[in-house]
Amino acid sequence: MAYFDHNATAPLAGVARAAWLQAQDEAWQNPSSGYRSGARVRALLDRERDRLGQLLECAGDQLVFTSGATEGANAVWAHLAARNSDSARVLVNPTEHSCVLEAARRWFPGGVELLPVNGNGVVEPAALQARLSGGVVAAVAVMAANNETGVIQPWRECAALCQARGVPYFCDAVQWLGRLPAGGLGGVDFVLGSAHKFGGPKGTGFLKLPAGPWGRGFVSLLGGGQQDGRRSGTEDYPAVAAMVAALAESESCYVLQESGRLQWRAQFEAAAGAALPGIRIVGAGADRLWNTVLVILPEGAQARWMTKLDRRGFQVSTTAACASARGRSSAVLAALGVPAEEAGRALRFSAGWGTRPEDWQALLAALVEVRAEIGAGVA
Amino acid sequence: MAYFDHNATAPLAGVARAAWLQAQDEAWQNPSSGYRSGARVRALLDRERDRLGQLLECAGDQLVFTSGATEGANAVWAHLAARNSDSARVLVNPTEHSCVLEAARRWFPGGVELLPVNGNGVVEPAALQARLSGGVVAAVAVMAANNETGVIQPWRECAALCQARGVPYFCDAVQWLGRLPAGGLGGVDFVLGSAHKFGGPKGTGFLKLPAGPWGRGFVSLLGGGQQDGRRSGTEDYPAVAAMVAALAESESCYVLQESGRLQWRAQFEAAAGAALPGIRIVGAGADRLWNTVLVILPEGAQARWMTKLDRRGFQVSTTAACASARGRSSAVLAALGVPAEEAGRALRFSAGWGTRPEDWQALLAALVEVRAEIGAGVA
Repeated sequence: MAYFDHNATAPLAGVARAAWLQAQDEAWQNPSSGYRSGARVRALLDRERDRLGQLLECAGDQLVFTSGATEGANAVWAHLAARNSDSARVLVNPTEHSCVLEAARRWFPGGVELLPVNGNGVVEPAALQARLSGGVVAAVAVMAANNETGVIQPWRECAALCQARGVPYFCDAVQWLGRLPAGGLGGVDFVLGSAHKFGGPKGTGFLKLPAGPWGRGFVSLLGGGQQDGRRSGTEDYPAVAAMVAALAESESCYVLQESGRLQWRAQFEAAAGAALPGIRIVGAGADRLWNTVLVILPEGAQARWMTKLDRRGFQVSTTAACASARGRSSAVLAALGVPAEEAGRALRFSAGWGTRPEDWQALLAALVEVRAEIGAGVA
Repeated sequence: MAYFDHNATAPLAGVARAAWLQAQDEAWQNPSSGYRSGARVRALLDRERDRLGQLLECAGDQLVFTSGATEGANAVWAHLAARNSDSARVLVNPTEHSCVLEAARRWFPGGVELLPVNGNGVVEPAALQARLSGGVVAAVAVMAANNETGVIQPWRECAALCQARGVPYFCDAVQWLGRLPAGGLGGVDFVLGSAHKFGGPKGTGFLKLPAGPWGRGFVSLLGGGQQDGRRSGTEDYPAVAAMVAALAESESCYVLQESGRLQWRAQFEAAAGAALPGIRIVGAGADRLWNTVLVILPEGAQARWMTKLDRRGFQVSTTAACASARGRSSAVLAALGVPAEEAGRALRFSAGWGTRPEDWQALLAALVEVRAEIGAGVA
């Protein structure tokens, strides 16, 4: 396992592959069809919805299957905008994924107020509370864990503060899911999940809606009225079955294996600090996902590092994949006040459940080699 | 093959399954990632886009991969609405799929003008021309082939009339694709396709956009800016590869096998007329897809017929699957002026490339048996 880019996408898990193939063989019919094989797919789909609800700790009927987190983010903001006046304000964490930030700006033009973050990129509950007290707020968006730094946000506290003030809370849990337990997220009003980040297929995800009036009238797509009218389009049962299988397996990985993971990461970080003087770990002072390390390297452009590591068999990322493809620098690092010059030396390493301590060690050895090459001016 | 509901969904084609599995094994990386394996997926994705463009006869960069036709329909109307004033009129065929009709009403409230259709449900070019002359029109939507009746619309003539008047033409080609050649559709401004109707996976589809200014600024989903900013969200290369493989195979099926298909259907219809007096074929006077027959039965509720046929191993549909699941009667039949009582006796049979003449014959034999049971009052 030299693949250190699980936050961009993960390989399809074996259980997901098996679930998908079985569904394509035995449960490929349209779940809206009235004959027995169609009704059976409907029942299987509902079973997966309930199973996902159990993992998140919410009712199955609060879940909408989507094409991914981007669809969910766009639909949540459109829904909240329709429920509020044109002058409504929303409070948004500045290190959100671009799908949350850009859709917020589209649906609340002029109404997006960025929350302050500390030096690690964490929205501190006291800061949120102060902003909530400063006037009527239509919604708050703070993600569960950051895709670039792995920094964990205090989403439980954010949810409690929002609940106390009667403000809808929207939590992008894309990077949290599959790495840390899903339980409790069902208590958050709006939650985004994306299957391919935790070993499910691409093109599938889910949105958790609030049970009460805030969820009423939600529509992502109009049409045939599938999913109780909340998301039209033929339901993709094979992909749903694969997604839930992958998430359930990740949950069991957590139970069985998580304890050592933070230690492996800490060992890597300590060794990297010793072997690569001048390296800096972003968000080092905050709780972070066990799988993610974002570093600022002491020298050399990030693309050079990435290319040289790739040649050695290590896939790492310069920033969010979607931003890197467009040559954009990291909006997350900008929000943390990291100067552009430093951001140009950032690299993200993101592991999976299959990543072993020796993989982290091998990555470090490769980093040391690349450092030597870059220092010596090797192209 | 006793499955006569291909217009609801088709089983996954072998070529699609193979393409999906190969992509999951060898090309699962994020196409936005900068390392070689990611760049390779980007190149493969672009290759499939060009291949699809070749089938449709348009440039690959006019194609946007979507989660299906419902997403495309919602996005096209939203895009057209953003380009027009609040009072704009759009001309829409009344037998469109609900995703086209409902999204049109959402984005052009009060501005949707239904086109007249003849007794077969066909939009006659002269009628369209008359409406186009009656004032400024923001867009015209007429599907390629109807999902319930199989009736083929004169989409080439519609496209030419719209082009002559400088009006964008939007064509839902979901049921046409995979049954009749895709070539020429690339000349239509906006075209919808859905993979699972022709043997590709569910949850994937495409939208063809116009090359000129009408397509400019199109955005289905905001976020990471994938697909040139036109549809954010990690591209699902495995599903795209499977979709294009299924469509390419369907095209070759057409070349090799289509000639007999209309004849098999005609034989079935003639034999059904003789064996089931009082049966009526909807749209019989129009060109229809070789795979689709919508009948009004002489007696008995459609659900009884469906259930009894299902017990005999034949899956058929009472109306569009998405509508039937919600107990809605057929909007298409209503648009054709079929009384609700008659619409309650409608059944749709939709074949696939694998359906043989003996399957049509067996279906007829089962219909005759069911007719006898219903006539005798057997529950």
